[in-house]
Amino acid sequence: MLRLSTLFVRTLREDPSDAEVASHRLLVRAGYIRRSAAGVYTWLPLGLKVLRKVEQIVREEQDAIGGQEVLFSALQPREPYEATGRWEEYGPTLFRLQDRREDDYLLAPTHEEMFTLTVKDLYSSYKDLPAMLYQIQTKFRDEARPRAGLLRTREFIMKDAYSFDVDDAGLDASYEKQRLAYQRTFERLGLPTVICQADAGAMGGSRSEEFLHPTEVGEDTFVVSDGGYAANVEAVTTLPPEALDEAAIAALPAMHLEDTPGASTIAKLTDLSNEAFPGKGRVAEDGQWTRHEMLKHLVYLLTHPDGTTEPLVIALPGDREVDPKRLEAAVAPAIATAFTDEDFAAHPVLKKGFIGPEGLGLEAPSGIRYLVDPRVVPGTSWVAGAGEKDKHAYDLVYGRDFTSDGTIEAAEVRDGDPAPDGSGPLRLTRGMEMGHIFQLGRKYAEALGLKVLDENGKSVVVTMGSYGIGVTRAVAAIAELNHDEKGLVWPRQLAPADVHIVATGKDAAVFEEAERVAAELEARGLEVLYDDRPKVSPGVKFKDAELLGVPTSLVIGRGLAEGTVEVRDRASGTIREVSPAEVVGAVLAEVRGA
Amino acid sequence: MLRLSTLFVRTLREDPSDAEVASHRLLVRAGYIRRSAAGVYTWLPLGLKVLRKVEQIVREEQDAIGGQEVLFSALQPREPYEATGRWEEYGPTLFRLQDRREDDYLLAPTHEEMFTLTVKDLYSSYKDLPAMLYQIQTKFRDEARPRAGLLRTREFIMKDAYSFDVDDAGLDASYEKQRLAYQRTFERLGLPTVICQADAGAMGGSRSEEFLHPTEVGEDTFVVSDGGYAANVEAVTTLPPEALDEAAIAALPAMHLEDTPGASTIAKLTDLSNEAFPGKGRVAEDGQWTRHEMLKHLVYLLTHPDGTTEPLVIALPGDREVDPKRLEAAVAPAIATAFTDEDFAAHPVLKKGFIGPEGLGLEAPSGIRYLVDPRVVPGTSWVAGAGEKDKHAYDLVYGRDFTSDGTIEAAEVRDGDPAPDGSGPLRLTRGMEMGHIFQLGRKYAEALGLKVLDENGKSVVVTMGSYGIGVTRAVAAIAELNHDEKGLVWPRQLAPADVHIVATGKDAAVFEEAERVAAELEARGLEVLYDDRPKVSPGVKFKDAELLGVPTSLVIGRGLAEGTVEVRDRASGTIREVSPAEVVGAVLAEVRGA
Repeated sequence: MLRLSTLFVRTLREDPSDAEVASHRLLVRAGYIRRSAAGVYTWLPLGLKVLRKVEQIVREEQDAIGGQEVLFSALQPREPYEATGRWEEYGPTLFRLQDRREDDYLLAPTHEEMFTLTVKDLYSSYKDLPAMLYQIQTKFRDEARPRAGLLRTREFIMKDAYSFDVDDAGLDASYEKQRLAYQRTFERLGLPTVICQADAGAMGGSRSEEFLHPTEVGEDTFVVSDGGYAANVEAVTTLPPEALDEAAIAALPAMHLEDTPGASTIAKLTDLSNEAFPGKGRVAEDGQWTRHEMLKHLVYLLTHPDGTTEPLVIALPGDREVDPKRLEAAVAPAIATAFTDEDFAAHPVLKKGFIGPEGLGLEAPSGIRYLVDPRVVPGTSWVAGAGEKDKHAYDLVYGRDFTSDGTIEAAEVRDGDPAPDGSGPLRLTRGMEMGHIFQLGRKYAEALGLKVLDENGKSVVVTMGSYGIGVTRAVAAIAELNHDEKGLVWPRQLAPADVHIVATGKDAAVFEEAERVAAELEARGLEVLYDDRPKVSPGVKFKDAELLGVPTSLVIGRGLAEGTVEVRDRASGTIREVSPAEVVGAVLAEVRGA
Repeated sequence: MLRLSTLFVRTLREDPSDAEVASHRLLVRAGYIRRSAAGVYTWLPLGLKVLRKVEQIVREEQDAIGGQEVLFSALQPREPYEATGRWEEYGPTLFRLQDRREDDYLLAPTHEEMFTLTVKDLYSSYKDLPAMLYQIQTKFRDEARPRAGLLRTREFIMKDAYSFDVDDAGLDASYEKQRLAYQRTFERLGLPTVICQADAGAMGGSRSEEFLHPTEVGEDTFVVSDGGYAANVEAVTTLPPEALDEAAIAALPAMHLEDTPGASTIAKLTDLSNEAFPGKGRVAEDGQWTRHEMLKHLVYLLTHPDGTTEPLVIALPGDREVDPKRLEAAVAPAIATAFTDEDFAAHPVLKKGFIGPEGLGLEAPSGIRYLVDPRVVPGTSWVAGAGEKDKHAYDLVYGRDFTSDGTIEAAEVRDGDPAPDGSGPLRLTRGMEMGHIFQLGRKYAEALGLKVLDENGKSVVVTMGSYGIGVTRAVAAIAELNHDEKGLVWPRQLAPADVHIVATGKDAAVFEEAERVAAELEARGLEVLYDDRPKVSPGVKFKDAELLGVPTSLVIGRGLAEGTVEVRDRASGTIREVSPAEVVGAVLAEVRGA
């Protein structure tokens, strides 16, 4: 039994000054967690109880699909992470340290390398596979901006699972099992999630999906359509307009150069076009020039993992901005930074403000990579910089007047953009990544030499999947979803106790009855939180009960003399009176849903 | 059910080359653990099951004394550890690291500081106390010599508890509760322990006891007497001989100087004394000079925590060596290093090989600290260096001819030395530290400002205890204690499964029967490990069963056709035959001890 007179908890009436979101504010105020450093938290007794219940649900669903639990160390040597390239690639997010012999170690952000090596150590035949291994373990990531309490921390608990199969069909089956396990896990946690296509990125895997929980406090943006399409913004592909055929292109007005003094931005260029060439716009019905038909050129410096750099020009419709996250995903593992004045000085062929495509004859072949937005298809007509100051090209047709080195998905996705699968307009939604399932393929097995003998005695590289759930973050998301202005409102399966008994007043009979009921409920298998504090006012006790958020509370007080106690439902706020004789049955019925 | 056909395990017939002790050898060979770096291990599924059972016993006994479980982060900021001095004092054993802002962090070796700060955050009144908090958490220590598998690792799981009381009587009560909880814990783990007085050392606490498990592979030496005295060697106090009174001292032969050419060691001095002054020894009945009466003088350089140094002269009977661990404990927090030739050169008053006490008139008052072994009491008579080359003083009586700045417990403890409490001769024993309970007192609370208001509204510093159990090490100790030449022999309460079912041969009826029995035992609440591997020989299966060490195994094989299966007891090796109809009852009786 948890007695509030001795429980290690202190509720706060004031919000902590650094709390941005409700879950952070309330978990601290209700005494579930305390901050110990930036992005590092302590779990107090009530918080730990919720955490363990979340862990247990995650564990049971992993066990249900044949997952086998193991436990790896956080401290890992550099070498395997060096072999897969992650020692470098992880950048400043990796906590690195040295031991007393000055050997390099890291605190593992995930454990692909070590699982791979351990399977290599234990297994050698196709008969040993498939294998599904997982751990629920403490991870470390030196986040640039830890935020929002438990939503983004630098030390956190994660369930990470890894599958090992001899072939792609096996990987597909393992992946599907985890996908179903994730759906069941989040359902049991009471966390609605949308399964979004995720960008497989530099990891080189084939299939990758995120389980995003839609919430305003989420850090991720994803898109959904009414027809069922869902994707991470990084993974959204653009539905291109139809291209024109050669004959249709030939019939378009010819390209011509015009003087455009000072029109070094899309806004200025659009205004100048409307002044100088009114009614000649190609898109709007009234002939107004629109930003959409101005082809915006942006220049980045790409830094490759080996340290080499090169410029990259991206062309996109003038009414779109580049989405930094989509750009990052599109160029990974390289890193793109905006061209600086010095970069422009080093590449005089790029005339800032008047950059245009190659092949106009305006510039010599530059060797510079030039990628266009997928909306730039053959037959689309644009206004673009002519490669010299104060001059632009009009009626510049892609596929006739210029071409590119390929397309890039870097432009922002907007509400109303069409879903790539034709399932209707997209809606942008904020969400929080709760889980990620990912076909890693053979990247890690190849780097670390994990092979088994197949049925024919031939050595084959094992194919892997990785599957993560943020356990710490799940607690925050659950608190975020289940609260009101008075405090937390835990779902029954995750509450730190089944019932919160409040004894009020100074009457010894009240406390005796509360003890009796508490003991009996506990004997029936319920977890009881009992507010037995002798000199605390009923008002404070009720406020604490609301803040702590146990789903059912039982108030034993003045009414006892008249033969009634109150059963309160935290979520609905309803109160009903029952007699002391009925109370145990009534609470059991509430808790067990009878 | 754990099926060996899919369980993530691989047994090895060969010992790992780096294994020094049985627990390490067998836990690796049986597939319970794997090494991932020096002193860092991975828990495979069977190992994790044992670990969790040990944890749960530790947890239940902490809960039983009102301990409240919390969970702190491993990553901790430097500042609080700086405030208590441990950032420096911990030396190279502390894993230190920096985050991306170059702020200093550490991986906590224990959490005194953070518990103190959290109690300070939550509590403010004597009414909040006593409080007993604990966690079962991953600790990091950069051990100079990780060894013996799980016995000394650099990342390990520890239960650390801390008590908070308003006064010394409260601390005594909290300490006593933990002491009893530890006795129950180790009893449930099946680990005999001796409660040894430990040196409170630099921590400044008052009472400190270690729970040492006697074992040959232990790293600690402790002493016990038949009368019940037990202490860590660092904590043993010397039973001094009786001192003489002034009159008796005055009656002793007068001190005299003698030439002792070349007698710069105790051995040479003893030989020379026997040659030059035969029959004049004061201790042996036959008048032989003994090493015991030669007063050995050793010189050390003490380095204090603030970096200052000073020489220290220690005088002890010539038949004793200094025990480096006792010396270390005696001078802590200073560090003693043996005087080098340069040090001697810097202190010409100290004549190497002929050093004697001050106050003989042989030396001017030197200001050098001079401590004697507790056996040097008033009225004891010695031969000692006269402070000049090739000269010694004979019949040098302590309390008449020389004195000291105090005593020091630095001499080695020997088998047969008397226990300080008069409980008989001491026996030296090897042991492994399984737990440590410790009255910290007010050191941490003072350094970090943890005070509460007492009954009179006065602010008082809280007094603390700390209580640790090495959970990882307990698994190793249990394995070390419970094995034979064939493998592990788990006690029932800690075994990874209750019963190991072995199906042998190729007969489908055997496997069907094994499945049926496994399912039924599982339905009765037993944890079943089932060797369902179809093409593995009975010999290999039996060997694996012995290596894995489940206490009861059940062999279903050829005998089935004649109506018998075998119930085997791992510890005793006994085999008895039962009929398939009886088998479930028989196994239940074995497991539940009916």
